Amino acid sequence: MAQALRLAEHGLFTTQPNPRVGCVIAHGEEAVGEGWHQRAGEPHAEVFALRAAGERARGATAYVTLEPCAHHGRTPPCADALIAAGVSRVVIATEDPFPQVAGRGIGKLRDAGVMVESGLMRETGRELNIGFFSRIERGRPWVRVKLAMSLDGRTALADGTSKWITGEAARADVQRWRARSSVILTGSGTALADNPHLTVRLPDGEAFTPPLRVVLDRQLSTPTANHVFDSDALTLVLHADDANVPKHADNIRYASVTEKNGQLDLAAVLHLLAERGCNEVHVEAGATLCGALVAAGLADELLIYVAPLLLGHRGRPLLRLPALNDMSERWNLQLFDQRMLGTDIRLRLRPAPAARN
Amino acid sequence: MAQALRLAEHGLFTTQPNPRVGCVIAHGEEAVGEGWHQRAGEPHAEVFALRAAGERARGATAYVTLEPCAHHGRTPPCADALIAAGVSRVVIATEDPFPQVAGRGIGKLRDAGVMVESGLMRETGRELNIGFFSRIERGRPWVRVKLAMSLDGRTALADGTSKWITGEAARADVQRWRARSSVILTGSGTALADNPHLTVRLPDGEAFTPPLRVVLDRQLSTPTANHVFDSDALTLVLHADDANVPKHADNIRYASVTEKNGQLDLAAVLHLLAERGCNEVHVEAGATLCGALVAAGLADELLIYVAPLLLGHRGRPLLRLPALNDMSERWNLQLFDQRMLGTDIRLRLRPAPAARN
Repeated sequence: MAQALRLAEHGLFTTQPNPRVGCVIAHGEEAVGEGWHQRAGEPHAEVFALRAAGERARGATAYVTLEPCAHHGRTPPCADALIAAGVSRVVIATEDPFPQVAGRGIGKLRDAGVMVESGLMRETGRELNIGFFSRIERGRPWVRVKLAMSLDGRTALADGTSKWITGEAARADVQRWRARSSVILTGSGTALADNPHLTVRLPDGEAFTPPLRVVLDRQLSTPTANHVFDSDALTLVLHADDANVPKHADNIRYASVTEKNGQLDLAAVLHLLAERGCNEVHVEAGATLCGALVAAGLADELLIYVAPLLLGHRGRPLLRLPALNDMSERWNLQLFDQRMLGTDIRLRLRPAPAARN
Repeated sequence: MAQALRLAEHGLFTTQPNPRVGCVIAHGEEAVGEGWHQRAGEPHAEVFALRAAGERARGATAYVTLEPCAHHGRTPPCADALIAAGVSRVVIATEDPFPQVAGRGIGKLRDAGVMVESGLMRETGRELNIGFFSRIERGRPWVRVKLAMSLDGRTALADGTSKWITGEAARADVQRWRARSSVILTGSGTALADNPHLTVRLPDGEAFTPPLRVVLDRQLSTPTANHVFDSDALTLVLHADDANVPKHADNIRYASVTEKNGQLDLAAVLHLLAERGCNEVHVEAGATLCGALVAAGLADELLIYVAPLLLGHRGRPLLRLPALNDMSERWNLQLFDQRMLGTDIRLRLRPAPAARN
């Protein structure tokens, strides 16, 4: 299963909106077929693995990171293919939450006399497709907020200058987080101030599905000459109902979202993105939008790059958050991953399950 | 030598103003005598090790973390004792920078026909007595600034509440940094706002020399009822020339320091502390004093505890620093030690030797 999960990771940048899936067909310790899902519309992991195994699939065990599908989508059901190939046992990391699968793949296999076990390395399997599970189970994407700051929690000088706080290794790492996301989200403030491209730059032609760029721009204040509207990727602008929507340009789409307290309703934004098949949202925005996501409980993960330098109290703050009346109102997080990237520290945190003291 | 350095560490909390020194007397791999310096006025490491070795010191090698002394201080010269005991070889980690020793110990040993090697594990030997070396070589103590902050670089709520940002393990760790210091330094602002004891609390009767508490209080605004003046340790108040100095209380001392830009001159403060035998200064103060030390290039080390929580942009900033005109004026640091203490991260940083980009 560990190998199947590694295979699945080959699809990290390409399968969206589909989940990443890997499959190993084995007799005992010997793998006779391997495969992974490469991109939506193309065959599933099981199909590639069965092809590679050929006749040797008969009587073998298939390790699949996600429950095989039982429905006719763009490809025929993988459960049928496994049965037809004579696989005698299927081991699954995670059951598929997708309503058209949800246990039916397992049922179909069992009905055909195939032994099925589920839950091997379940947590790793869920992490691999954390956005897919989030979209199907919660109706909203997994939201990862990327932040880069000095040691004293400042993202820029007082005048907004932020090039470059972090080093090359950290900036290259950011590209990989962008590449695995369905959406790169920003606000009009950042679009106007920093004029970012928000596209993916990977070394030596590594394949990826270009993430949709999404700009929250209530009154459509970002000029279309902005880099965020260049032709390197599609851009979706989310605006208020009463905004004056221009003619759609080739690679720009517009959609309206309800407002809440005079701002676009962030829950509605995420709901809309989930409806459009978005699994992981990568947020690169300012202290206001990032803070609003945290305050609304919609930031599932913080990805923070800390550079070993000081900018002082006049620098821009990391997050704008509502005032706290006392220490019990603070936002508690849980650090689950920490590493060095050059001289910068990368921290990954999620909301703490309960008060820590 | 590694063992001698470990022995020296037994004196971490007790030797000041003396350096921590360890000594192992060995025949090949076999240690026949070990010792360490325990406190000022008591015998040096070599004496304890020679006593333990007895006749077996003859022809042995002595590993000493600091060059043996050659002068009559409160105890007779260790170089003489090593010669008298018939030690044939002495290996030293670091030479003693103290003017009355500085190579004379080595000279004396060599004159007596003892083979001497110097520089084995020199860096570790210097780190062990970083404050002692700083005081003798630079005429000022080693200044370690302790800070505790949220992930977004905030030390307290807007109203100053800071109990407790970090967890128990971090707070216990702070006690050990206090214990190894000659001085715990704060400003009158922190003394007034937080009313801290600034004493050392160690578990189960671990021995330590109580650090001198030093309060920078230009106009003597801190009432003597403040905890920082309690009878658990001595307190030195540094004030401006024109302050109205009260009668000295039993455990309170006063001294004046020159001013610079309307504040006590921090370089003069450190000079005064060095003159009084202070090796390591542990700073627990607010964003103003800590920031002034950083801005003046007088903070040799930052000891930062980062708690995995967010307080928002209204929280108190980590450091008040002069405004930066552009990114090249930022303070670059070098991270040299990082560990988890419970759920908190402890970072230790020193000024970067040169620009990092």
